[in-house]
Amino acid sequence: MYIIGELINGMYADIGKAIKEKDKKVIQKYAQEQIAHGADALDLNCGPASREPVSDMPWLVETVQQVTDKPLALDSSKPQVIEAGLKVLKNKAIINSTTADREKLEILVPLAKKYNARLIGITISSGGIPQNKDQRVELAANIVSTCVDLGFPVEDLYLDPIVLPVNVAQAQMGDILDSIKEFKIISDPSPKTIVGLSNVSQGTSVRGLVNRIFLTMAITYGLDAAILDPKDKELVDSAITAELILNKHIYCDSFLDACRKK
Amino acid sequence: MYIIGELINGMYADIGKAIKEKDKKVIQKYAQEQIAHGADALDLNCGPASREPVSDMPWLVETVQQVTDKPLALDSSKPQVIEAGLKVLKNKAIINSTTADREKLEILVPLAKKYNARLIGITISSGGIPQNKDQRVELAANIVSTCVDLGFPVEDLYLDPIVLPVNVAQAQMGDILDSIKEFKIISDPSPKTIVGLSNVSQGTSVRGLVNRIFLTMAITYGLDAAILDPKDKELVDSAITAELILNKHIYCDSFLDACRKK
Repeated sequence: MYIIGELINGMYADIGKAIKEKDKKVIQKYAQEQIAHGADALDLNCGPASREPVSDMPWLVETVQQVTDKPLALDSSKPQVIEAGLKVLKNKAIINSTTADREKLEILVPLAKKYNARLIGITISSGGIPQNKDQRVELAANIVSTCVDLGFPVEDLYLDPIVLPVNVAQAQMGDILDSIKEFKIISDPSPKTIVGLSNVSQGTSVRGLVNRIFLTMAITYGLDAAILDPKDKELVDSAITAELILNKHIYCDSFLDACRKK
Repeated sequence: MYIIGELINGMYADIGKAIKEKDKKVIQKYAQEQIAHGADALDLNCGPASREPVSDMPWLVETVQQVTDKPLALDSSKPQVIEAGLKVLKNKAIINSTTADREKLEILVPLAKKYNARLIGITISSGGIPQNKDQRVELAANIVSTCVDLGFPVEDLYLDPIVLPVNVAQAQMGDILDSIKEFKIISDPSPKTIVGLSNVSQGTSVRGLVNRIFLTMAITYGLDAAILDPKDKELVDSAITAELILNKHIYCDSFLDACRKK
C-alpha cells in the first residue's frame, strides 16, 4: 500500500508552532521520521491556524524537500495554496484534494495536469457529505469523467470515499468500504483509491485498534493508498500483513521488515 | 461472530495428559476460562495420541458438561467417535466435521439430523485439498445439496473453506476469502460459514498478527463463526471491532467489554 505520512499538519501543536516560528528543524525531523518508518510520501498541511497559507505552504515544501526527494502531498482546500506549493516543488507532487464540484475540478484538474501531479478526489460536493454508496459512486463518476474530459490520466487519480467516524456514522461504514471496490470499476484503466484514515476513529476510546481494523478491511476491498501515521507500528504491520495475505508481498519469515525496507 | 473455543484438544500437551490420566480439573479449567473470555461454544478433540477416542470423547463431553451448558463441538474425523459423544451429550451439539465425500455425508448428515446438531462441512474430499475457489464452491454445493436431499436445515450447516497456512499457500488466500462470500449465495436460506483459524499462521513468526488480520479480512467477507483461541485478547478485540464497523454491534465507548458480556 502506498503510505502518505499525515504528521506534518499545522493542527498538531508542535507543527503549528514550528510553522508560525519558521522552525525548519521540527518539520524536517517529522519528515525524516515518517520516511524512516516507511512513508512513501508526505502530506503537508498548514493547519487551520495558519494566517498566511499562501506563503506557509511554499515554506513547508522548501523545508521538507531539503531533506527528502519523496513525493509531497499539498493538502489544502484552497487551490491558490496548492498552486503556491507546486510552484516551488521539485519532488513529485500529489494534490490533496479536489471535491466533486465542477468549478473546483476545472481549476484543480488542469493544475494537476500542468504540474504532472497526482490528484486526490474526495467524493463530497457543495451538496454535502454523501449519505450512501450510490451517492459516493455518482460523485466519483463525476470526478472521473471530468478527468477524462480534461485529458488527465485516470490512473493518477486517487478517489477518497470520505471516511466518517464510526461513532457517528456507523450505519455508513459498510457503504464506505463497498465504495472502495466500486470506484475501481468506474473506468478502465481504474482510478486508484485512498482514505484519510484517522477520521474513522475520531472520538473513540480505542483509536489505534479502530484505525488498524478499518484499514485492514479497506485493504481487503482493494484500497491502494492511505494517509496515516506511519509511526504507528501496529497499524503498518496490519497493512503489510493484509497485503501479504492478498499475495501482494512474497512471504518470508521476516516479511514485516522486508516490506518496510522495500 | 460465533466463537468456538479451540483449546480442549489432545494435541496440546496438558490436555493430552489430562485425557490420558482422566484428570477432569484440567479440562474443566480450560472450559471455564474459554467461556469467561467469550467463547459461545467449545470444541472437544481427543487429539492424535488418544488410543481410545470412542471412550475418550464421551468422557470429555461428560467432564465439560458438568461445568457448562454451552454447545459442544465434537471434533473427530471418525463418525463413530462423534456418535459416541452425541450419545451422552445434553448440551446443544455441533458436529465437527464432515468432508464433501458422499459416503461421509450419508453418515454424518443423518446423524446431525437425529441429534438436532449443527454440522460443519469442510470443502475437502478424498480427491484432496481444493486448489482454487471454483473447486471449493463445487464441494460446498455438493455438501449443501446432500443436506437438502436428506432434509437437514441448511441454516444449521457451517461451511469451512479449509484455511491453509499463508507461508505454504499464499497464492490461494484470496480464493479462500472469496469462497466465504460465495458460500453464502449457494442457497436461500444461506448456509453459515466458519474457519478453523489457527492453521493460517502455522509456521509463521508472527502467529497472533497473521491470525487477527486474516480473521478481520474473513469477517469483511461475511464470516459467521470461527474456531479459535478466545483467550487471545487482541484477536477477539479485532473480531469485535470488525463487526462494529460492519454495524453488527451498536457503538458505545466501551464496545469491547459490552460485546464480550453479550
